[in-house]
Amino acid sequence: MNFGVIGYGYWGPNVVRNLTNIEGSRVVAIAELSAKARHHAQKAHPGIRVTSDTAELITSPDIDAIAVITPVWTHYELAKAALENGKHVFVEKPFTSTAAQGETLIELARKKNLKIMVDHTFLFTGAVRKICQLLAEGTLGKLYYYDSTRVNLGLFQHDINVLWDLAPHDLSIMDYLIQADPEAVVATGQSHLNGHEDVAYMTLYFPDQVIAHINVNWLSPVKVRTTLIGGETRMVVWNDLEADEKLKIYDKGVNITNQEGVYDLLVSYRSGDMYAPQLPQVEALREELSYFIDCISSGADPHNDGCAGLRVVKMLEAASESMKKRGELVYL
Amino acid sequence: MNFGVIGYGYWGPNVVRNLTNIEGSRVVAIAELSAKARHHAQKAHPGIRVTSDTAELITSPDIDAIAVITPVWTHYELAKAALENGKHVFVEKPFTSTAAQGETLIELARKKNLKIMVDHTFLFTGAVRKICQLLAEGTLGKLYYYDSTRVNLGLFQHDINVLWDLAPHDLSIMDYLIQADPEAVVATGQSHLNGHEDVAYMTLYFPDQVIAHINVNWLSPVKVRTTLIGGETRMVVWNDLEADEKLKIYDKGVNITNQEGVYDLLVSYRSGDMYAPQLPQVEALREELSYFIDCISSGADPHNDGCAGLRVVKMLEAASESMKKRGELVYL
Amino acid sequence: MNFGVIGYGYWGPNVVRNLTNIEGSRVVAIAELSAKARHHAQKAHPGIRVTSDTAELITSPDIDAIAVITPVWTHYELAKAALENGKHVFVEKPFTSTAAQGETLIELARKKNLKIMVDHTFLFTGAVRKICQLLAEGTLGKLYYYDSTRVNLGLFQHDINVLWDLAPHDLSIMDYLIQADPEAVVATGQSHLNGHEDVAYMTLYFPDQVIAHINVNWLSPVKVRTTLIGGETRMVVWNDLEADEKLKIYDKGVNITNQEGVYDLLVSYRSGDMYAPQLPQVEALREELSYFIDCISSGADPHNDGCAGLRVVKMLEAASESMKKRGELVYL
Amino acid sequence: MNFGVIGYGYWGPNVVRNLTNIEGSRVVAIAELSAKARHHAQKAHPGIRVTSDTAELITSPDIDAIAVITPVWTHYELAKAALENGKHVFVEKPFTSTAAQGETLIELARKKNLKIMVDHTFLFTGAVRKICQLLAEGTLGKLYYYDSTRVNLGLFQHDINVLWDLAPHDLSIMDYLIQADPEAVVATGQSHLNGHEDVAYMTLYFPDQVIAHINVNWLSPVKVRTTLIGGETRMVVWNDLEADEKLKIYDKGVNITNQEGVYDLLVSYRSGDMYAPQLPQVEALREELSYFIDCISSGADPHNDGCAGLRVVKMLEAASESMKKRGELVYL
Repeated sequence: MNFGVIGYGYWGPNVVRNLTNIEGSRVVAIAELSAKARHHAQKAHPGIRVTSDTAELITSPDIDAIAVITPVWTHYELAKAALENGKHVFVEKPFTSTAAQGETLIELARKKNLKIMVDHTFLFTGAVRKICQLLAEGTLGKLYYYDSTRVNLGLFQHDINVLWDLAPHDLSIMDYLIQADPEAVVATGQSHLNGHEDVAYMTLYFPDQVIAHINVNWLSPVKVRTTLIGGETRMVVWNDLEADEKLKIYDKGVNITNQEGVYDLLVSYRSGDMYAPQLPQVEALREELSYFIDCISSGADPHNDGCAGLRVVKMLEAASESMKKRGELVYL
Repeated sequence: MNFGVIGYGYWGPNVVRNLTNIEGSRVVAIAELSAKARHHAQKAHPGIRVTSDTAELITSPDIDAIAVITPVWTHYELAKAALENGKHVFVEKPFTSTAAQGETLIELARKKNLKIMVDHTFLFTGAVRKICQLLAEGTLGKLYYYDSTRVNLGLFQHDINVLWDLAPHDLSIMDYLIQADPEAVVATGQSHLNGHEDVAYMTLYFPDQVIAHINVNWLSPVKVRTTLIGGETRMVVWNDLEADEKLKIYDKGVNITNQEGVYDLLVSYRSGDMYAPQLPQVEALREELSYFIDCISSGADPHNDGCAGLRVVKMLEAASESMKKRGELVYL
Repeated sequence: MNFGVIGYGYWGPNVVRNLTNIEGSRVVAIAELSAKARHHAQKAHPGIRVTSDTAELITSPDIDAIAVITPVWTHYELAKAALENGKHVFVEKPFTSTAAQGETLIELARKKNLKIMVDHTFLFTGAVRKICQLLAEGTLGKLYYYDSTRVNLGLFQHDINVLWDLAPHDLSIMDYLIQADPEAVVATGQSHLNGHEDVAYMTLYFPDQVIAHINVNWLSPVKVRTTLIGGETRMVVWNDLEADEKLKIYDKGVNITNQEGVYDLLVSYRSGDMYAPQLPQVEALREELSYFIDCISSGADPHNDGCAGLRVVKMLEAASESMKKRGELVYL
Repeated sequence: MNFGVIGYGYWGPNVVRNLTNIEGSRVVAIAELSAKARHHAQKAHPGIRVTSDTAELITSPDIDAIAVITPVWTHYELAKAALENGKHVFVEKPFTSTAAQGETLIELARKKNLKIMVDHTFLFTGAVRKICQLLAEGTLGKLYYYDSTRVNLGLFQHDINVLWDLAPHDLSIMDYLIQADPEAVVATGQSHLNGHEDVAYMTLYFPDQVIAHINVNWLSPVKVRTTLIGGETRMVVWNDLEADEKLKIYDKGVNITNQEGVYDLLVSYRSGDMYAPQLPQVEALREELSYFIDCISSGADPHNDGCAGLRVVKMLEAASESMKKRGELVYL
């Protein structure tokens, strides 16, 4: 499988390195606008063609698939051109700037019989796979809430707000784990510096009393990557910054009893052991790109396809609309 | 100063112990409905009158002030009776169940020339006093946001939701630190067990782009007491569960520059040292009760008076209204 | 059971409080030399006789047992007098200043048919009991090492070095868990301030390749209470400063294989899950004092009797001798 | 500067990558015995000559300097051959297997006017440089102790014990920071698996009451990299596993007063703020290799030269001798 990679900024080098290392995959060309980044790309990969000409990649007959690792506002045009030229597309998250763009790309890929994969990297981590397994097996019991905090200092984006920058991680994970569509979204936030919200909060109402909340912030002095997942029988704390014990599963919960009277509580607590399962030490991006190559070969649709990307974009659009009106409930 | 204490459940014993230890203060009677709690009270304090008769305390001529350490729905009647009988009142947070009740009590105290103090204990901790000083001295620069997480397993209340139970801490601290009235509130949440919301989120919009957010949860497997405060020049992380370094002040921030162009960021980061000031090791409740006694003696109004308690109740009422409508913006 | 308590400094108040709360136990008198401490004792416990006259307690006919909660150099004379007057003795750790003193007390108690308990409080914590159970059940496999770090700033003792102050905790725990006598001791250390070593390290060689090490330090800026216990099949980290997860049990270990050759490792690693068992939330001192009362009533010898105290004193004597000679191997 | 690198196992790839990236430096050949490692080297660096023939590198006329990144027992022969062929030598720590070997190499390099650098990488980290500065400026006051814990699961070495594997890091840092020769060494340890000690403890006595201690362990379930440094006026905790606040400086210490009497302490505590200085985010190995190239160019002797490496080897030899006799004091 021959790849062209567009964009060699922060994330592009990781995509190139992994595509190079995967058996049966090769990067034949990199397109990048910045001369400095092109210099780094050429130095690190003397055997790869490096160019500023995006069109050259997209139309190149020796390229089977294009990886679009550029700012979100460029995704639609680049992916569309790639699909029109018969290339499969791997595209950075969020998928597109609007739901309409996403729908167009999905339709185009369907017609051309090409694959789209949206880079929802976290779905390929050991932690998310383990949580998925715990939910599927019923270990957590009925889901109560999903609560994520994803804050740090920067990186400020000039074209999107903090929700579009950081929340796609959480929304794609939620979408994968909860396997239900949110009914409505409430988002609040504030911009302090360059017009885009740098602090934002998002609540999603799911069916069956499931509630999700996302706290994203570009102005935090400390980096936090913590998700709490509460279930009826067990609860999970996922701290992605921990080196060794990212996932802690608590045998804790609540029992409802039938006591009555003003001073009697209707609810009692159950507190038990905690365990931290060993997670496979894999590089998620490598897993994801291997899966992309497998899907292209087999013709299977990846679970993180254009439709998954579109669901996330729709949530982001709803959140933006809600935030603009300072927290109005927006139905999906 | 002779005190009567009503309520000897979770918090009452601490109030009794501190009032006993403070020079010039004495507890003469405890009223408590539970026979078991009365037994504990009497065993621990053989010299104090222990009774189930609340009215006896409230009308007792040897009592100067009443501490009301009972569930919120009883505050109004007990405090009203105490004031009517000429007693100063120290009342557990939240002040009252409704703003109207709070206003009545404030007016009554004013007429009777009596003092009300609402137990906003955190205002008397070394951490909050230090943050207050940092803000007053301009160390943090212009305030950007206040973001608090206060979650743990239980204790479920049978009469109020998690917002009324846990958020008064944060609202009273915010009210004390920000020294401005919030313009509007958005709250979301979900109940899973006994009809009261057990997971809730609250955003407060303040003037001058200041935003505050509170995350409260009775269903968290881990206890978290962390507040992030972002300012233009410095940022604070307050982890109240740390034994020794509760407050960390980061010399981190954002500089806005005038660069332009699609790929140039308008914002750059400034990252520097962190320092953790030594905080005085005081018991906040003791400080607060001493201050109450001083206010009664001197005739001064405490800063955590009925009006402060009322401001918190108004925010809670607005939040409840917003949460009922799944996040509607409610102006204050 | 009527108790007299000698010493109301740092630890004495906890002994008095627990003896007061235990059903069937009562403190009738407290002896203390400091007038200030006597004042605090009387204020907190108006119903207890408080005196500066130690002899009055020891000879008092209404007292069944004496708790000696004083500096180590006073233990021998006080405990001896108490035993001679027919009182059971609960004595603070370390048992005595010399092994000879300990032997005399044990012999005296035996003759008088009285009980001695040495206050090895940690043996009654949920953590130590759980570790004991893990070892007894074979969960950890063959024991490899026991490695404890117990450091903090102060409290400097004027009469003993840091080994005699802090290591008795670890030595008594080790003695309880390992259930074998150490063969030899090596200790190193240094004094910087008042002539007593304030930093010290102690290695104990046990049979069967078991090695133990203790790191104690009065000059550490941070408090550490961490013990690593390595076994053939599982390993334990006990962090006593953690609120909720004091004990972490790792399914980690080493497999020895028979590969040969210069570049082949003879050892491979096995890495697995971690779990943190829920520990009972008990106050260890209360458990210990209840056990003492039970032993007196039933006539049973406590496991933390004078002999256990003596074993610890012998290790401390050997360590002092070794440290004086800068690490000479001292056989026990 | 043209480099040949011998050894492409765990650390070799990092040396090659950094030498490739440094301006003015180039790797022309890699020698490695393992065919698998040679394959990885060639794939990652298609432009570099990869061979199994060490002699070819050592005698190659296009190579100026040799990096010896192999097991310690091979260092002497490889470095000697390189020096004899007129190459400068960068050699992995520990320098050599014996002090005599180290002395021979130093003498040979002196005669040939060639440079030896021993890879004491930690000396080039932001943390060690900052501590060095704090000591030099007198910020910590007179040094009291240096106490390091360096434990984790594996990697077992087949040819050396845990002291020779892990302690060189600490010994080289101590040697750099304390700038005095230790007077004597005491080491204890135990082997449990393959004949080499896998758990070991080492005390070093320095002049002026400075004591150092090193705890190294291949059988720990958790990774620890923590060093405590106690000074008269300030104390440092260096946790190398922290992402952002590796170094914490405590304004804590001890004041000696002249009070006397049995119950008066001669020592009181001073407790103050903590601060964590921002450290430069540099890759230590790159700094070190750049410094090596600079030293070769300028003719200056690096501070981590053969003599520094020899001092560490002498401490290791003394420790091995002490450990063999179960903690005998060995003078240096």
